[in-house]
Amino acid sequence: MPFVTVELLEGRTMEQKRALAEKVTEAVEQTTGAPKERIHVFVKDIKKDEYAPSGIFVCDK
Amino acid sequence: MPFVTVELLEGRTMEQKRALAEKVTEAVEQTTGAPKERIHVFVKDIKKDEYAPSGIFVCDK
Amino acid sequence: MPFVTVELLEGRTMEQKRALAEKVTEAVEQTTGAPKERIHVFVKDIKKDEYAPSGIFVCDK
Amino acid sequence: MPFVTVELLEGRTMEQKRALAEKVTEAVEQTTGAPKERIHVFVKDIKKDEYAPSGIFVCDK
Amino acid sequence: MPFVTVELLEGRTMEQKRALAEKVTEAVEQTTGAPKERIHVFVKDIKKDEYAPSGIFVCDK
Amino acid sequence: MPFVTVELLEGRTMEQKRALAEKVTEAVEQTTGAPKERIHVFVKDIKKDEYAPSGIFVCDK
Repeated sequence: MPFVTVELLEGRTMEQKRALAEKVTEAVEQTTGAPKERIHVFVKDIKKDEYAPSGIFVCDK
Repeated sequence: MPFVTVELLEGRTMEQKRALAEKVTEAVEQTTGAPKERIHVFVKDIKKDEYAPSGIFVCDK
Repeated sequence: MPFVTVELLEGRTMEQKRALAEKVTEAVEQTTGAPKERIHVFVKDIKKDEYAPSGIFVCDK
Repeated sequence: MPFVTVELLEGRTMEQKRALAEKVTEAVEQTTGAPKERIHVFVKDIKKDEYAPSGIFVCDK
Repeated sequence: MPFVTVELLEGRTMEQKRALAEKVTEAVEQTTGAPKERIHVFVKDIKKDEYAPSGIFVCDK
Repeated sequence: MPFVTVELLEGRTMEQKRALAEKVTEAVEQTTGAPKERIHVFVKDIKKDEYAPSGIFVCDK
């Protein structure tokens, strides 16, 4: 604790995700005072055929 | 917002999921008054080897 | 299974939520073929001080 | 209901997951009094490239 | 990691929840080999006006 | 999308949460390229009687 879950539309590179996890961890550390070793980040890909904004899947747009 | 997550046992076709996302979006729109463009639907497959009702995985039944 | 979770900004009446749960259940039943007694709907209020689109809480807008 | 979700770092065998689902179901049954047929367990693998404790992905350690 | 989330219909006592967290932790420890200090359990109450099996809220049954 | 959920042990001030939501949004914007208006942050309090690391609730430690 704290736990952070980031859901992203698939397509980001591992390099972007590394930077994301690092920067988000820093943001949480600085604003909550939690030590880095207690911050857990999850980065999850959401596939284009499982996300439907306005009821239409991204893969169909 | 609103956000809707539907978890389904794997096996439905993309055609079924399209109808599902559309109909669920309409149901949310009509009953909450939220405009369609603010309704986000996620349809996630649950695999038969990750769901265990009564403690036994579906793939083992 | 199926399980449906609807997250709504706080403020809807219980009456709206009842209609929502009923209509969403019907939509899932019709499009997936799952029998009604296996469809579970969760309707969760999201508070204005816990949701921050664009990084600003709704309670501060 | 009750619903139990277990998130595990990928790598456990199906045999371990079977034992896990069974033992967790028993633990929930004994302590809450819920009948086994109403206890639903989900066992989800978390991949090493989606979990970043302290901001660094497990696959990079 | 592992992380365990248990969702219970409201009404269990704190005493039941303590036993639940303890027994579930033991079950996870024994079956996955994860050390106890890395197992995190969350026990969440689901209110009767937010859970609608078959589309009807528990508070209305 | 992206969606970010931060789970924090209860006790942080609204001021800390505002800074958290802002800084996390910036971190996601800079590293993923997603425009700010598509980034949604949720900050959720976890109560001391619902989180049990090592099987013991924080409120009992």
